[in-house]
Amino acid sequence: MSLHGTYDPQNVFAQIIRGEAPCYKLYEDDDVLAFLDLFPQSFGHTLVIPKRSTARNILEIEPEALAKVMAVVQRLTRVLVDELQPAGVQVAQFNGAPAGQTVFHIHMHIVPRFEGEALGIHASKRAAPETLEALQARLLKHLS
Amino acid sequence: MSLHGTYDPQNVFAQIIRGEAPCYKLYEDDDVLAFLDLFPQSFGHTLVIPKRSTARNILEIEPEALAKVMAVVQRLTRVLVDELQPAGVQVAQFNGAPAGQTVFHIHMHIVPRFEGEALGIHASKRAAPETLEALQARLLKHLS
Repeated sequence: MSLHGTYDPQNVFAQIIRGEAPCYKLYEDDDVLAFLDLFPQSFGHTLVIPKRSTARNILEIEPEALAKVMAVVQRLTRVLVDELQPAGVQVAQFNGAPAGQTVFHIHMHIVPRFEGEALGIHASKRAAPETLEALQARLLKHLS
Repeated sequence: MSLHGTYDPQNVFAQIIRGEAPCYKLYEDDDVLAFLDLFPQSFGHTLVIPKRSTARNILEIEPEALAKVMAVVQRLTRVLVDELQPAGVQVAQFNGAPAGQTVFHIHMHIVPRFEGEALGIHASKRAAPETLEALQARLLKHLS
């Protein structure tokens, strides 16, 4: 679980990429996949991951793959801002368990912030499926 | 101070880019500048900014400029990990004051995390100049 180690092809994001695990998908192309976090730190919490990379963290990812991920982070941040009108947005990427990383396939967090709402590093509560479905539908309208 | 507004050319990072304000510089090329945070959230807290962009946040930055910033974030994260041996590293980018943004020129934070050390969103204590100078010297050795 340290910064140095081996990529585990059974991590949940690898399963999502292979279609073996479900996700509330917002965006996908040949290189990048974006979906809603199941344990959101705030309403609209979105994850963006590279599909072709087996990088666990920012130390390992190919710069071109990182650039493609960031372009999608930017695009989805605009969609989240347009649709949810948050007061702010935090973009974050955690490397290593002591930094808050729980899935060891590199991912960017997009976390909308709303006035008067505190935020922990970790979310502990799973969002209701109907909440995630309705949110996915709202955001997909902006992406089409 | 919201997500939408006008770039202020007198912000402190614009002054640093123009050479009107000092910084503990770690890296500079035609497009990107990196330096130590004066109010570090942890030992090694580094900031990376685009030099040619007048984007206040991720909504506004040109994708090419963002890609160049991220490549330097990656390079400096490796240097910080090699030299300081943190347990983890958080990479973060804040959009809007309610998300923790205090300077309205887009910037990426690289925040090393050490075992047993808590971390707030904001740092309140200015680092001692001699601490920053010694740290800068250590990191520059890795970059040369």
